[in-house]
This record gives sequence, structure tokens and C-alpha cells, in this order.
Amino acid sequence: MRLGFLGGTGPQGRGLAQRLAAAGHEVVIGSRSAERAADVAAGLPGARGLANADVPAASDAVFVTVPYDGMAATLTPLAASLKGMLVISCVNALGFDARGPFAPVVEAGSAAEEVAALLPGALVTCAFNSVSASHLVDPDHVFDEDVWVCGDDDDAVRRTVALADAIDGMRGVAVGALRLAATVEALTAVLISVNKRHGVAAGVRLTGL
Amino acid sequence: MRLGFLGGTGPQGRGLAQRLAAAGHEVVIGSRSAERAADVAAGLPGARGLANADVPAASDAVFVTVPYDGMAATLTPLAASLKGMLVISCVNALGFDARGPFAPVVEAGSAAEEVAALLPGALVTCAFNSVSASHLVDPDHVFDEDVWVCGDDDDAVRRTVALADAIDGMRGVAVGALRLAATVEALTAVLISVNKRHGVAAGVRLTGL
Repeated sequence: MRLGFLGGTGPQGRGLAQRLAAAGHEVVIGSRSAERAADVAAGLPGARGLANADVPAASDAVFVTVPYDGMAATLTPLAASLKGMLVISCVNALGFDARGPFAPVVEAGSAAEEVAALLPGALVTCAFNSVSASHLVDPDHVFDEDVWVCGDDDDAVRRTVALADAIDGMRGVAVGALRLAATVEALTAVLISVNKRHGVAAGVRLTGL
Repeated sequence: MRLGFLGGTGPQGRGLAQRLAAAGHEVVIGSRSAERAADVAAGLPGARGLANADVPAASDAVFVTVPYDGMAATLTPLAASLKGMLVISCVNALGFDARGPFAPVVEAGSAAEEVAALLPGALVTCAFNSVSASHLVDPDHVFDEDVWVCGDDDDAVRRTVALADAIDGMRGVAVGALRLAATVEALTAVLISVNKRHGVAAGVRLTGL
């Protein structure tokens, strides 16, 4: 599959692209700056770098790996070109203050539901939110965690689960409807809190499957 | 420890009481009806059954195992007697509709934060929310899951973690501040969705600890 990464020059997008390229997919790095995208793509075997606007036409599925704050501005102009496509939201609307990380209230319910509202007709799933970006870019890190996938289109969920399964040490698990995305996203705040409290880099697994 | 269970005649309270009695704790079953409490206590070795109102004075720590709908009515009259005590909220504000389970918006942020608001001066933690009640009451079920504990008082969190650790196959993990309770509670909706979708009885584990 040709996998595009909107905001693919950040550690989350770059790390996922790196892992999925290693799994045999063609990756397309997107950025506001085509030049920066090309720079990052140059470090990945077989990757292309493009302006975000050119990513949909070059991809079979698209990851949203931008910070929440820039998400609406990035996606709004791409609504027409993403219609009917698998769009995987990896976005977390995280807040931090003196008491630590927290999941702020998002009007749409979650970042992923906001993605769905911004992109009518796109097949939106929510996944990879809680996977550590620093683990993704560290080639020596061996994963031991599940990727919870939610979405309202069964085929889109299945394809997203398969992408998670393609990464060594990860297991994709379809957890349910897109409205569970708020919890899947908020899990990241819990994991960051656990990491800080225990000095670890925690992941999550479901037992009993 | 003498452990009280407000609403301890339901499957969640009864199951936790059963498991913690097996771990060597003295348990006190509370109910709106002292008679019903006594009936349930009669089935547990060494347990007492009391009206909810009499549970705090007979306990060193108290579990809130009532349905969310009856929570405020149960706790409000007990505010004075629970001051300074460890109060473990196991309450989930769950909703169900045609699209499955979901975590509805609670004005206080979470059921556990509502417990804290209803009980000024109590040492409130949130834990055991996602543990299956049917597993708890099934003596043959062997647990393989973590219990995520959050709370703002470190000692209260430590004591709650120790209670989780006392149950075979469970591991208590301090995940952070009480404001993470919304996610800990919403995890139950995700697990119910997973169970329904995959025909399993899932639990959760943190990896990398």
C-alpha cells in the first residue's frame, strides 16, 4: 500500500512511516513544506516527500500525524481529495499543567471525531495514538503492545488493524465504534502519567483475547 | 483491614468482597436494606452485613460499589462519617444504546471526581472499575489483568494498589491523579465493546513496567 503521512516530518509520523516502510509499504511523507518533506523522505528507503496538499493523490491511505492545534487547518483544504479514502487519525488533544498530562474536552468528542466531521465521506479510524514516538524512531526498540483501533466502517477498521499487525511486536485490536476514540486518545495521557510516575515507557495489552 | 462495601449486595461489590475476604481481609457488606446485607454476608466467611449508613463506622476503608444513578443519594448522608477515610470508587457512569456501550459526560469529569465532591475530606481513589463482576463472583476464574488506580492522595493510592495486589492474578498500578478517572472509567466501555465484538472477556495490562 502507498501510505501517506500528513505532518509526516514530526516524530510520530516519521516513526510510523519508518516502521511501515520496513514492513514493505511505500510511504509518502507530507509536510506544509515540500522541501522539509523531501529531506525527511531522503532518510527513508523508497519514500517520497510532498506538500501535504499532494499527499492524498499519491496515497492509498492517509495517516493524520499533525499536532491537534494544526489539525483543522491542515485537513480542511483536503476534504475533497480524501473523500472515500481510509484516513487514520493518530492525533491526541493532550493538555499538560502542574498536575501532569490530561485529556482536554474536545467539542466533537475526540480528535478523531473532529477529523470525521472535517472530512465528510472519508473512512476515518483512530489508532496508534498511544504508541511512543520516541520508540517508533528508535530502530532498537522492540514493541510489546496493542494498538487499539476504533472506527465506524468495518473495512476501514480491518485495514487499520492489518497495518498495526504489520509492525513487529504490535497487535492491532478492533475495539469498537469511533465514538470510543475519546478513550483511546485519553489513554495516551494515562500512559504519559504512568511513564512519569514509574520512570518507564509503558504500553498497553488486552488480555483474554 | 476491615473493608466496607456500600452497595455490596450487587455483583461488583459482592465479588470484590469475596475476593478480598479470600485474601484475608474482614469484609462488611452494606446495603439500603440491612436484611439484604445480612443475607449476602451470610454467604461470605467472617463477613458482616449492615445498612449502608452503619458501614463507615465498622470499616477502615470503604468501596463505593453502587450504580452511578444511586450514587449521590447513597453518599450524601455519609459525608461526615467518611471524612478522612480511604474511599475507593468503583463506579462507572456507563451508557448503552444501539451503537453499543459508551462513557457519558459526567459533570464532575468522572464518577470518582463526583464522589470526591460529595465527600469533602475523604481520601478518594478510583479503581477496579473495569474488572468484570461476573469474573469476580466466579471462584474458578483466574485473573490476568491490571487494576489502574488513580487518586490525589499518594498514601490512599498506595493502599488501593495493595488491595488490588492482594487478589490473585491482579496487579495494581498507580496511574496518576484523580482527574485521570474519566479515562479509567471509560476503559470499561472499551472492554465491553471488545468483549461483544470478539466474544471474549478482556482485561487490560500495562507492558514495559
